[in-house]
Amino acid sequence: MPNNTLVIIGGDAAGMSATSKVRRVHPDKEIIVFEKSNYTSYSACGIPYYISGTVENVEELIRRSPDEFRKRYNIDVRTMNLVLAVDTDGKRIKVLDKEKGTEFWQKYDQLLIATGGKPYCPEHISGHDAENVFGVSTLKSGINIENYIKDTKPKSAVIIGGGYIGLEMAEALLIRGLKVSLVNRAPQVMNTLDPDMGAMVSEAIKNLGVTLYLDEELKSFDCTDNKVTKIITDKRTIEADMVVFGMGSSPNTHFLEGSKIALGIKGAIKVNAQMQTNIPDVWAAGDCTETLNLVSKQHMYIALGTVANKTGLVAGSGIAGEKAVFPGAVGTAVCKVCSYEVARTGLQEKELKKLGIEYVTATIDSKTRADYYPGAKKITVKLLAEKNSGRLLGGQIIGEEGAAKRIDVLATAVTHNLTLQNIIDLDLSYAPPFSPVWDPVQTAARKLIKDV
Amino acid sequence: MPNNTLVIIGGDAAGMSATSKVRRVHPDKEIIVFEKSNYTSYSACGIPYYISGTVENVEELIRRSPDEFRKRYNIDVRTMNLVLAVDTDGKRIKVLDKEKGTEFWQKYDQLLIATGGKPYCPEHISGHDAENVFGVSTLKSGINIENYIKDTKPKSAVIIGGGYIGLEMAEALLIRGLKVSLVNRAPQVMNTLDPDMGAMVSEAIKNLGVTLYLDEELKSFDCTDNKVTKIITDKRTIEADMVVFGMGSSPNTHFLEGSKIALGIKGAIKVNAQMQTNIPDVWAAGDCTETLNLVSKQHMYIALGTVANKTGLVAGSGIAGEKAVFPGAVGTAVCKVCSYEVARTGLQEKELKKLGIEYVTATIDSKTRADYYPGAKKITVKLLAEKNSGRLLGGQIIGEEGAAKRIDVLATAVTHNLTLQNIIDLDLSYAPPFSPVWDPVQTAARKLIKDV
Repeated sequence: MPNNTLVIIGGDAAGMSATSKVRRVHPDKEIIVFEKSNYTSYSACGIPYYISGTVENVEELIRRSPDEFRKRYNIDVRTMNLVLAVDTDGKRIKVLDKEKGTEFWQKYDQLLIATGGKPYCPEHISGHDAENVFGVSTLKSGINIENYIKDTKPKSAVIIGGGYIGLEMAEALLIRGLKVSLVNRAPQVMNTLDPDMGAMVSEAIKNLGVTLYLDEELKSFDCTDNKVTKIITDKRTIEADMVVFGMGSSPNTHFLEGSKIALGIKGAIKVNAQMQTNIPDVWAAGDCTETLNLVSKQHMYIALGTVANKTGLVAGSGIAGEKAVFPGAVGTAVCKVCSYEVARTGLQEKELKKLGIEYVTATIDSKTRADYYPGAKKITVKLLAEKNSGRLLGGQIIGEEGAAKRIDVLATAVTHNLTLQNIIDLDLSYAPPFSPVWDPVQTAARKLIKDV
Repeated sequence: MPNNTLVIIGGDAAGMSATSKVRRVHPDKEIIVFEKSNYTSYSACGIPYYISGTVENVEELIRRSPDEFRKRYNIDVRTMNLVLAVDTDGKRIKVLDKEKGTEFWQKYDQLLIATGGKPYCPEHISGHDAENVFGVSTLKSGINIENYIKDTKPKSAVIIGGGYIGLEMAEALLIRGLKVSLVNRAPQVMNTLDPDMGAMVSEAIKNLGVTLYLDEELKSFDCTDNKVTKIITDKRTIEADMVVFGMGSSPNTHFLEGSKIALGIKGAIKVNAQMQTNIPDVWAAGDCTETLNLVSKQHMYIALGTVANKTGLVAGSGIAGEKAVFPGAVGTAVCKVCSYEVARTGLQEKELKKLGIEYVTATIDSKTRADYYPGAKKITVKLLAEKNSGRLLGGQIIGEEGAAKRIDVLATAVTHNLTLQNIIDLDLSYAPPFSPVWDPVQTAARKLIKDV
């Protein structure tokens, strides 16, 4: 093998999926992983459940520790090492050893950038970095929140932003006994749903006991002793003992500014289907990259564990000399807030309007089981389909137990250009404990097909 | 409209789906439904849950009563009317009014046969019609079982046959406090699964407290006062207070013998994709018809509520003058036995061997949620794919809560000729309460693709 040293920046989902793949193919290759924290290969998605106490020990979120990678897989994992810059001409990266406080250059033959995402933080607002203000991204960020709660016993929290993480953190803090308020700039939470579906989630959140301030924007913080005490919006002042940002995330690519690596949407790294950047021998994967949306055929930025694992595997395969391709995603996502389940896939109305695609929609209420079977819960399904062709373009589901995973059939349908008639014709499983005889997604398709 | 009188034989899923569709399109058309029982439009699939007491009142299983059809939809529903013969040359049917005891001929312009299926009964064995021997099919059959249990308080039951209904009835009778034995001719229960997966279900059934006699065949009954007291197999004698057949079902088409309507597999009515029989103006739908298997491209006999509803709707559309087609099914089925969920779709090994299709299989164990998330249950997924092409041919799932409905993605994949790589690439939903980051069906595809 002419290229000897593989350097990977970032030791979580994408980076370690790639690492493991390369190691399986090349048992002797030199692989060095630089990770800024003390942790590798953990489930960042599990953090809200650690905060809530649903998951007891933070160790449960760790799939493989740096030591395991070192000893069992012969991977040179360097924790507490922050990469500061990439010099693609010199095929080297600049690294800060955070423990020693020293900087050095590391040569690479092949490089994989898998630095993930970071929660959006309104850096123009003074107090955004106060000690009781938190983002949720790395395992360290989760531990920080947990320690803060344990040490200071806050009684109230304000969440800024009503996306998945905002809602999951709202649940977590409710469970911990805090009074929770949520400030959301848009008229409804969960802006990856259409507003009519988002409104149902807003209602559900309120029913859980979250004080919801919709159509309202964070303007400033009042701070005392490096702690935020008041959150000031365009409409009111809210006192709180802690603040959590749930305003979405952006790629962790600031250290690439000035490098020759091409960046795209939101600063995410541009990659081809093999997860190669514009620079030879430099790959990128996971939340720091752009993702092709298979429905709009446009690139988007999403930060999701599924995509990170898939793109990490594809990058690893390519680096290992195998052929592999990541075709793209359709924006499938799912979220649980207390007993409510929310799921979505494909494009939503505002995206379709922007793309100038003529579409029709229908929304139905059904049950998760046969009506008469105990535990049958309400499920609401909204479908979006192309006018005339009837091709499914997107789906949104809100319901209780058993509702959300039904999005997977819609994700499969959207990916493979199935029409509403195709969905009606699907031989989906039925027995009274599992579904009505027409699965709710088919009931929605039956309603919508009349308008195509 | 030249054809004025639509006659429908059978008032359950297929018949009444068609009826409702025709009525929506033609508010004034004369529609007569002959139904041999007192009930219409009920969920036969719910019977085991009525027997177990999970569903309290039998009325809950009825979607629309004969009276509702009569008054609200102007459908002339004639209950307790058994159709004895069809004379297609004369465009008339011979009917027995069971209450009056009279026979008469009814003319039709269009005829839909939707007489459903009946549980297989070993009629060569004396005692098969004893008063404590039951099949499960019509609502009446469920009421008979319930009344028998209530009136005679049986302490033990033997189920003959280990298919879906056999297992669901085993659960129901266990819940009712009976000692339950199950006699199964094959070496494993649930012969729509491969034997390796069936063995897992056998094990689960035993763990629930069912005494399982596998590889064992019913030979005769000992009867006293028209009641079976002993069940004699090729290996032993079992005493029991009641017997339930769960040996599969066959189409209810004996009354068509001697007619010109073409019958196929197991005596099921041959139909085209519009659900038309070989005779003009005669349609058929539901459990009395053959179904095209979209994977094998061969006709099969299955008795399922989903197919009955779909084919009823298609037949009704055709009768109403609309264009509609039922493309076929892929043999998806799902079953719950206590905490176990079992699901299958597509072809199984023995079918693939018979068809001479070269295939590969893999089986994996995973969890229904993220490992660390409370309530994560074991799920086992087996996939079957075509050698070389990697096209998915079938899937089987066994697990606990949250396992079975995952079959729907596989059913969609099988129907639309997706490959294992397509499945790996699917953007399926993930959050810790719902799934591992690689959904178990994808984990299975990742394992199997190595052998393609």
